[in-house]
Amino acid sequence: MPEFSPQRSFQPLLVPDEQQPWQTLSSQQLSPAPHVLLRDTVLTGHGTQLAYTYRPRGPVAVFVLPITLGGEAVLIRQYRYPLRAWVWEVPAGGVESGEELLGSAARELHEEVGGSAAQWLALPAFYPQPSVSGAAFYPFVAFGVTLQKAQPEADELIERHVLPLSETYRMLDAGEILAGPSALTLYQARVHLQARGLL
Amino acid sequence: MPEFSPQRSFQPLLVPDEQQPWQTLSSQQLSPAPHVLLRDTVLTGHGTQLAYTYRPRGPVAVFVLPITLGGEAVLIRQYRYPLRAWVWEVPAGGVESGEELLGSAARELHEEVGGSAAQWLALPAFYPQPSVSGAAFYPFVAFGVTLQKAQPEADELIERHVLPLSETYRMLDAGEILAGPSALTLYQARVHLQARGLL
Repeated sequence: MPEFSPQRSFQPLLVPDEQQPWQTLSSQQLSPAPHVLLRDTVLTGHGTQLAYTYRPRGPVAVFVLPITLGGEAVLIRQYRYPLRAWVWEVPAGGVESGEELLGSAARELHEEVGGSAAQWLALPAFYPQPSVSGAAFYPFVAFGVTLQKAQPEADELIERHVLPLSETYRMLDAGEILAGPSALTLYQARVHLQARGLL
Repeated sequence: MPEFSPQRSFQPLLVPDEQQPWQTLSSQQLSPAPHVLLRDTVLTGHGTQLAYTYRPRGPVAVFVLPITLGGEAVLIRQYRYPLRAWVWEVPAGGVESGEELLGSAARELHEEVGGSAAQWLALPAFYPQPSVSGAAFYPFVAFGVTLQKAQPEADELIERHVLPLSETYRMLDAGEILAGPSALTLYQARVHLQARGLL
């Protein structure tokens, strides 16, 4: 049975609408789902009226650091069109409509690197870009991972790399993991890997 | 004289256009500067044509962990409209047109918390959301910071908090720093603070 810490909801941390210091006067949707973008006209606490373009809040993606039975990390190198570059990342992907976070994490682990996990650990969730986005990201560590053939989506360009944890964290400390959410997942996982004697 | 490590350019890490696995067929600008949003029609390596909405690549923001002469951290709590919440962050802000990264960091330190630094350390830059944004974020540690009155922009809602580093890192380890780029800045800074005997 997978172990899962369910205390992951962001709801208790959100300010109820009646306490909002800014007032929403109108809201226009600029971009359709799944990449919804809103442009609101807001009245600030100072009485200024301004336009604010942003992505609405909600769980958007899961990030998985897979650790194999042999104690290695499974990273990917992925082509990212907005960067015009290949970058090191952990397996990750969008939470689909109606999907549980853990189900989403298990699906991405399977699709992107062909992995199945014996045990899961939930790490602290975070907002990747609070100034322009309400997107919430949910990182996990997957332990006891076994690998089969990956099944990436047709338009995903992904290379799978199985690396010693020592090399993975050398890369992190050297600033070679340029993908911020993946780097943050690795930093959060470090203490747990050390506690288990894996690092 | 401030100390600054200049090896910060992302250019060597970007894939030159002639090596792109995807071909850009057309590009439409959905949103004006400074929050440029593009919708490109691209031809993938598999011959599929698809629409990709993203923010173009480039340096966008700086993040500053200020350490006072007394060895304390200066954090802020800021209202973020996309989250409808107040979150803990480090002082940060957009790089203005023509501005050097260090100049931008010094300006944000001054504006948001009224700080001036004796010494600067550049940490590894990162992409906050590689799937949808080419934005590059540049974190710094500011040492020997002295504080005067903050001068936030009229529509910024910011509280300044001076905290012991032990409490700052307790919050980080407990998952209380929900703003991902600020959390990543703190994780990156940790080894440098330990090396100086501050943590």
